[in-house]
Amino acid sequence: MKLALLGAGRIGQVHAANIHLSPRAQLHAVVDVNPEAASALAQRYGAKASTDPKAVLNDPALAGVLVCTSTDTHVELILEAARRKLPVFCEKPIDLDLAKVDTCLQEVQRTGTPLIIGFNRRFDPHFRTLREGIRKGEVGDVEIVKITSRDPAPPSPAYVRTSGGIFRDMMIHDLDMARFLLGEEPVELFATGSCLVDPGIGQAGDIDTAMVVLKTQRGALCHIDNSRRAVYGYDQRIEVFGSKGMLQAANPVPTTVTRYTRDTVSVDKPYHFFLERYPEAYRAELDHFLDVIEKRAEPMVTGSDGRRSLILAEAAVQSLKLGRPVPVPG
Amino acid sequence: MKLALLGAGRIGQVHAANIHLSPRAQLHAVVDVNPEAASALAQRYGAKASTDPKAVLNDPALAGVLVCTSTDTHVELILEAARRKLPVFCEKPIDLDLAKVDTCLQEVQRTGTPLIIGFNRRFDPHFRTLREGIRKGEVGDVEIVKITSRDPAPPSPAYVRTSGGIFRDMMIHDLDMARFLLGEEPVELFATGSCLVDPGIGQAGDIDTAMVVLKTQRGALCHIDNSRRAVYGYDQRIEVFGSKGMLQAANPVPTTVTRYTRDTVSVDKPYHFFLERYPEAYRAELDHFLDVIEKRAEPMVTGSDGRRSLILAEAAVQSLKLGRPVPVPG
Amino acid sequence: MKLALLGAGRIGQVHAANIHLSPRAQLHAVVDVNPEAASALAQRYGAKASTDPKAVLNDPALAGVLVCTSTDTHVELILEAARRKLPVFCEKPIDLDLAKVDTCLQEVQRTGTPLIIGFNRRFDPHFRTLREGIRKGEVGDVEIVKITSRDPAPPSPAYVRTSGGIFRDMMIHDLDMARFLLGEEPVELFATGSCLVDPGIGQAGDIDTAMVVLKTQRGALCHIDNSRRAVYGYDQRIEVFGSKGMLQAANPVPTTVTRYTRDTVSVDKPYHFFLERYPEAYRAELDHFLDVIEKRAEPMVTGSDGRRSLILAEAAVQSLKLGRPVPVPG
Amino acid sequence: MKLALLGAGRIGQVHAANIHLSPRAQLHAVVDVNPEAASALAQRYGAKASTDPKAVLNDPALAGVLVCTSTDTHVELILEAARRKLPVFCEKPIDLDLAKVDTCLQEVQRTGTPLIIGFNRRFDPHFRTLREGIRKGEVGDVEIVKITSRDPAPPSPAYVRTSGGIFRDMMIHDLDMARFLLGEEPVELFATGSCLVDPGIGQAGDIDTAMVVLKTQRGALCHIDNSRRAVYGYDQRIEVFGSKGMLQAANPVPTTVTRYTRDTVSVDKPYHFFLERYPEAYRAELDHFLDVIEKRAEPMVTGSDGRRSLILAEAAVQSLKLGRPVPVPG
Repeated sequence: MKLALLGAGRIGQVHAANIHLSPRAQLHAVVDVNPEAASALAQRYGAKASTDPKAVLNDPALAGVLVCTSTDTHVELILEAARRKLPVFCEKPIDLDLAKVDTCLQEVQRTGTPLIIGFNRRFDPHFRTLREGIRKGEVGDVEIVKITSRDPAPPSPAYVRTSGGIFRDMMIHDLDMARFLLGEEPVELFATGSCLVDPGIGQAGDIDTAMVVLKTQRGALCHIDNSRRAVYGYDQRIEVFGSKGMLQAANPVPTTVTRYTRDTVSVDKPYHFFLERYPEAYRAELDHFLDVIEKRAEPMVTGSDGRRSLILAEAAVQSLKLGRPVPVPG
Repeated sequence: MKLALLGAGRIGQVHAANIHLSPRAQLHAVVDVNPEAASALAQRYGAKASTDPKAVLNDPALAGVLVCTSTDTHVELILEAARRKLPVFCEKPIDLDLAKVDTCLQEVQRTGTPLIIGFNRRFDPHFRTLREGIRKGEVGDVEIVKITSRDPAPPSPAYVRTSGGIFRDMMIHDLDMARFLLGEEPVELFATGSCLVDPGIGQAGDIDTAMVVLKTQRGALCHIDNSRRAVYGYDQRIEVFGSKGMLQAANPVPTTVTRYTRDTVSVDKPYHFFLERYPEAYRAELDHFLDVIEKRAEPMVTGSDGRRSLILAEAAVQSLKLGRPVPVPG
Repeated sequence: MKLALLGAGRIGQVHAANIHLSPRAQLHAVVDVNPEAASALAQRYGAKASTDPKAVLNDPALAGVLVCTSTDTHVELILEAARRKLPVFCEKPIDLDLAKVDTCLQEVQRTGTPLIIGFNRRFDPHFRTLREGIRKGEVGDVEIVKITSRDPAPPSPAYVRTSGGIFRDMMIHDLDMARFLLGEEPVELFATGSCLVDPGIGQAGDIDTAMVVLKTQRGALCHIDNSRRAVYGYDQRIEVFGSKGMLQAANPVPTTVTRYTRDTVSVDKPYHFFLERYPEAYRAELDHFLDVIEKRAEPMVTGSDGRRSLILAEAAVQSLKLGRPVPVPG
Repeated sequence: MKLALLGAGRIGQVHAANIHLSPRAQLHAVVDVNPEAASALAQRYGAKASTDPKAVLNDPALAGVLVCTSTDTHVELILEAARRKLPVFCEKPIDLDLAKVDTCLQEVQRTGTPLIIGFNRRFDPHFRTLREGIRKGEVGDVEIVKITSRDPAPPSPAYVRTSGGIFRDMMIHDLDMARFLLGEEPVELFATGSCLVDPGIGQAGDIDTAMVVLKTQRGALCHIDNSRRAVYGYDQRIEVFGSKGMLQAANPVPTTVTRYTRDTVSVDKPYHFFLERYPEAYRAELDHFLDVIEKRAEPMVTGSDGRRSLILAEAAVQSLKLGRPVPVPG
């Protein structure tokens, strides 16, 4: 399957490498607004480079397209693909504007274009095992979900200004994970937070330390905590508690080595950041996209999932602003 | 040091055993409204039995008194001790009514009677190590505290009806722990919860699954989750995250044994409940009381601590009722 | 039950404290060749002090005696107790000379005097759980036992010279544990070792790093490794492998706290040495002695157990000297 | 780099897949005595299939060859490659006959042909971290090495008969690892063992449960234990103890998930067998071979390493037969 990659940035490079490694796929073309970036990545894997996504998408040889560009171009590029009924994989979020997302998804649905959103953590083997355990009834009825998600170091205030803020940019992954694990939609959300890490983030109008509490119709509770800076590395843990037990996914670490000295007993730190933490997830995500292209699977992370997580992120923004819980729109 | 024990119930028996084991103290008298209960416990340790606390407290040989009776009698008994300037150890909560607590504490202060409140978890070696680590700067500025506290099985709805509810009866321990670890007073509190474990608890007007989010003036955040039923045992874990790192206290377990079979790799379950989980804490708590009696230490858990945790529990009740965060009275 | 303690040294003090804490026993007399040591310990617990064991043992009030003196006096003191049919608890080893041990045990048996040998590790809750698991069939047929036993710091060469060497002094505990877990007698033993820690130990004619391999009639194998110096603390671990699985007992640690920093993730070090590592074992050992005195239990660690472990230690000495495996006398 | 793969069996298939995934290499030809096996594997990766290794090795396009055939053909095929100065990767062991190995290695050396032996565990990230830690002085002087190595299920007695026995076939990996970690050659070896798993293995003249103790000139000790059947999976652990501390590598597991239920707290079992346990090692091993071909690295596991481990395996066979330790030939 020949694939086009739109966006040659950090996450685009991850997908390019995985496409290259896959015996099922081939990196056909790389598009980036920066021609050098496109060329450099294309050359590494023997693909064509371009700055013109439309021209590339016109190639009838293409089996699918991955949208890894900046968020404000996602909707336009998804629509270009939808016009050609070309299966699309799009990094999260679809857009920061819910109205634009709605319009886009209607068009995607109208054309019947397969669309997958890049919530990579759903493909992580540790978290999938939680989901599978819930499905098998290992915890009984889910009552409490707790998600810890902390980045190793804060982004620049400049980035924060355009990112949509911590809820739309960072916690959106956790909000999607909450839906994935709760098995029903949250109906109420309370968000709070502080600027404790970098005053520049506060000056940019955002917070860097956040907590959200979700509640479902049935009364299940979910707590998410985010920090933009965990000095010990990327911290991604989940706990699911229910009527019959509990499942926990801890941070995987590079090696199983324990070191004993006169002063301390130590083990490996968590991985540095998402590229080191989620390699299997990115590979599984691509495999799933290839399955969808080949019509061997229905999308596991749909446009609707992308939309629902955005709605939750919006609710968090609202709740933080109002200083009280808000109902989550249906 | 001769001590009087008021209340021969479950927790009174724990203290009686520890007094007996201490080379510094002697169980002088046991008082209970139930004369059989008083006699049985007194006899086991060679103490006098009585149903009349005032008569017992009049004994000039007494060095201190432990109040382990039902909550509604705490204030009266503390005041009896205060009248005699007899050092008091009182199980939490002081009372469910804040006005009564205030009056009581004023009298205690006026008479200069040493008073310690039985927040046993402050004396747990695992949690004390967290507190000590914070004090030494191991996590830098505290930014996030997470407290998990789940009982093995729910109390009867009848008990729930008189207990003051999950916040005053159960979470009050965690609210005290939050203050102990945050190092500053929470200024805002949000509480939510559900009745998921036993409908009878809902009919009694309470919830059995709860989450609370606290925020301090400086912006530090604390999350507490409670469940009245964790099928795998008593679940008491704490995590403190800050600018320089993180400290976690996991559940201690009876043995370090790991079992490998064809089907599974398993380790010990957590302890069943508080009596099994906190034996060292109860012993250390008594030792501290003896130190206070001997004027070798200032009370580490004061009447004011008892009052502040009750104020937080009240705020949680209010927040749950109003469905929004509430400011915590100063 | 009134008990006499012979020997006021380090381990004698452990037993004195536990006798004091036990509601069933009373420390009646302390005997030591050093009158100051006897007085100091006796005074702390309200016991009589003496330098004359015979006089003390003549007291008809005595229910039992604990022999915690230097090894070369054990046999004589056991025999004094046996003459009076006084139940004896004796620290390991009974003696370094097997012939003396045999004579002693014959006399003990002739008089019907209950005798327990102080292999404290059999009473450790972690290791007892292994034994119990084997008994329940959790590992099926035992095929491999691995015992790691390392002290924090080497004794002085002067001590080594009189101790009987690493096998009789240190590994004898592990040889007893091997018998406890294998469930049958070793028939062959191979010992090897080196002097790597302190050349003075080598000059004293001993080694400080040792390995022993045992084989039973059925073909089960056991490996023991000893070092006189583990800089990270007292290292006591056991693994039992069999046809249906494996049981492992790891080192217990003081707290469950994990520390995450920019540089490392660390947990508690093992306990420093046996006094810190085995407090429950010493208490359970005393309880068992009291049960034996009251005829509520048969001795769990008999004179014969003390003799068999000495035979294994002798075999290790022989094997090391000869540089080849030796048969274990029946 | 075009590579020829000789042998399309289980381990050959692992290498074929890794060659296919490597951006640096290409699977050019697959040779197997079974033409169907060669074709099936060749076809999967677009390579040529053949039953004639000589013809394939004559192809001037080849950059290297991997020998994954049955042990008795290794020497002949290495020599064919050496004649063509073609870099060779050969699975262990080189041969079961030391004289043949010597002759072969002399020829390899004479021709200057790069040769790597497939001791995959040296490339495992966990064990490499141990080696690196030793090199950095994290444990000081190495005093004790303990290697546990247990297969999930025994091979058939028929296989055992031709395998060379447990020491040459299975423990040879651990003997190589011992050399890798000890940092000096063992000078003495003691082997013992039993047939506990399958009587058929005993009838085939072999044992299925083994222990070996190695000693180096300096006096460092190493213990290896093997079992042909660990019901809980492939058990591969190593511990290195020294004057400044200890390093342990535990079994990695598929996920970090812990499951709590009413009855048990369980974690993942170890991986099933070597294919699941060592995927990174096989990839790193191939990468190293490619580096050697490109003259960017010297072989990390040489023919001499293959020879030394065979000498140790032979010594183990001798020791078991003689029932005593044997010196290891220099």
